[in-house]
Amino acid sequence: MTIQSTQIRLAARPLGEPRDSDFQTTVRTLPQLRNGQVSLRTVYLSLDPYMRGRMSDAKSYADPVEIGDVMVGGTVCEVIESRAAGRQAGDLVLAYTGWQTHAVADARHTRRLDPRQAPVSTALGVLGMPGFTAYAGLFEIGRPKPGETVVVAAATGPVGSAVGQLARLRGARAVGIAGGPRKCRALREVFGFDAAIDHRSPTFREDLAAASPDGVDVYFENVGGPVADAVTHRLNKFARIPVCGLVADYNATGQPEGVDRLPGFLRRVLTLSLTVRGFIQDEFVPSLHDAFLHDMAGWVREGSVRYREDIVEGLEQAPEAFRGLLSGRNFGKLLVRVGEDPTR
Amino acid sequence: MTIQSTQIRLAARPLGEPRDSDFQTTVRTLPQLRNGQVSLRTVYLSLDPYMRGRMSDAKSYADPVEIGDVMVGGTVCEVIESRAAGRQAGDLVLAYTGWQTHAVADARHTRRLDPRQAPVSTALGVLGMPGFTAYAGLFEIGRPKPGETVVVAAATGPVGSAVGQLARLRGARAVGIAGGPRKCRALREVFGFDAAIDHRSPTFREDLAAASPDGVDVYFENVGGPVADAVTHRLNKFARIPVCGLVADYNATGQPEGVDRLPGFLRRVLTLSLTVRGFIQDEFVPSLHDAFLHDMAGWVREGSVRYREDIVEGLEQAPEAFRGLLSGRNFGKLLVRVGEDPTR
Repeated sequence: MTIQSTQIRLAARPLGEPRDSDFQTTVRTLPQLRNGQVSLRTVYLSLDPYMRGRMSDAKSYADPVEIGDVMVGGTVCEVIESRAAGRQAGDLVLAYTGWQTHAVADARHTRRLDPRQAPVSTALGVLGMPGFTAYAGLFEIGRPKPGETVVVAAATGPVGSAVGQLARLRGARAVGIAGGPRKCRALREVFGFDAAIDHRSPTFREDLAAASPDGVDVYFENVGGPVADAVTHRLNKFARIPVCGLVADYNATGQPEGVDRLPGFLRRVLTLSLTVRGFIQDEFVPSLHDAFLHDMAGWVREGSVRYREDIVEGLEQAPEAFRGLLSGRNFGKLLVRVGEDPTR
Repeated sequence: MTIQSTQIRLAARPLGEPRDSDFQTTVRTLPQLRNGQVSLRTVYLSLDPYMRGRMSDAKSYADPVEIGDVMVGGTVCEVIESRAAGRQAGDLVLAYTGWQTHAVADARHTRRLDPRQAPVSTALGVLGMPGFTAYAGLFEIGRPKPGETVVVAAATGPVGSAVGQLARLRGARAVGIAGGPRKCRALREVFGFDAAIDHRSPTFREDLAAASPDGVDVYFENVGGPVADAVTHRLNKFARIPVCGLVADYNATGQPEGVDRLPGFLRRVLTLSLTVRGFIQDEFVPSLHDAFLHDMAGWVREGSVRYREDIVEGLEQAPEAFRGLLSGRNFGKLLVRVGEDPTR
């Protein structure tokens, strides 16, 4: 069986916001399967902020995508053909095959999904890497106590919405920050945040103060920029700041001129005895991932953790959708439907 | 018995480096003793960087000294007269009576010192607050493992010299940063650091790199400024930064203009999974202070932790000596001998 894959490759390292010319579309024939491998048809491709880092060659927590390589990314795929035990045609699996319609992968790099347990797309969202990022960062680093206040930005996103709901499950007050009244309404009405604040509002700082009358004990940092600056000024003594992303700065092309805020930030770290802890979810997989899958699947089933997906149609939409992700245009977990979902 | 106390009071909030006109000397008669109180003659006054913060009214971890109040500070005193059980004339005690020759204090705010166990001045240094700051910050936050590299600046000071020696007791490599060849020699020859680096050297960054060939796992932050900036670029993944002081910035009068280093710092926190944790030693007193006194007294007795004192004579020298402390002119734990030490 000869399979053609349409692929989006990195053509150039973006300067600032990625442009169409930074990507290149190719069509290739997949290689013959070897023992232990499966050939896959992509159903969903996950678009996540970390991918911006992979497009750069700055030192980071993972190697950059090389120029000419297919862009990386988590996927939900259907098995077309299998030469591996435990996988057969028609199986749906979680894989990491990136921005392409078809791929060959080692079966041990895939995980079988059971569509009867949860919609398979959730393996890329609330039951996948974003949900686990929220779970590990909030519970292992943020450690909210009942009655404390937890603030998270990009709060309608897959990480932020889980952070707020998990905080409430622990008895904490959840304050979400998002862009625009529509997202803020969803924070209150869909995700049950105690307060929702629009970072585009001219009264943003006052609104934040009003929403955190007792100060902020956990700031789950996934955006950086001016929002982070405002929250930092509301922190209580012994506050914790899990840092899992800095989307606002991902397109930055140099060090910004102006006032150097680092000394003031460190002074606040000192006088408030703050804990600032960067993390990538991988670190917690060995110790926590099984508990996460068990807990989160239960909470999703019983409805105490809700999620929202923003699905765009067709692989060719990925570059534009990715730009929207970095500027906050999506609304929920951003997925590209690359091919038909046989379960829906 | 009528006792006169010579006192140094805060006359004005310093702008930048404290000037003589920011202080005022007064002479007052001590009040009559009440039950539970002792009258004290100051033997040693400790000068410590945190006092600069108390001179300002910016929000900090402790209330500021009010204008007109006696400057605060830890002291070793001799009891002149006692109306408290467990205290008698001639006892030497650790107190917090500040920049004055005599004072009345509640006995429960003093701790008796045994001159046979250790020189009483050490209660303000290696066996006192600075030593405990090193012990708690390094062991509870820094948590060096054998073979890891620990870097500390102001390394001939009472906190830094203890940090380096405690790191070596845990099997880590200790790299000390200090100003000038004389201090660097002391780091190697007196305190046994594995490497000593002069931050005034034009090759400082290269020297730091050469002294930390495997990178830096713990940066015990007590100075801030350009030294901190250089060390930050040597940090390994999962490095820990206990932040106990930022002396380089204490005299700063505003936010520095220029490049904003905060986004770059947070990016490093994220990509290296750093832990940055501010602390004041008070936090760890309930859980750790007894163990500290036991451990540290033993290490000092057996010679595995050494210390160095820089003693200036006479209370009137305190303002000038304090200015020297903020600019690194002292060499070892800075003490003012306010009155005769009966044990020496």
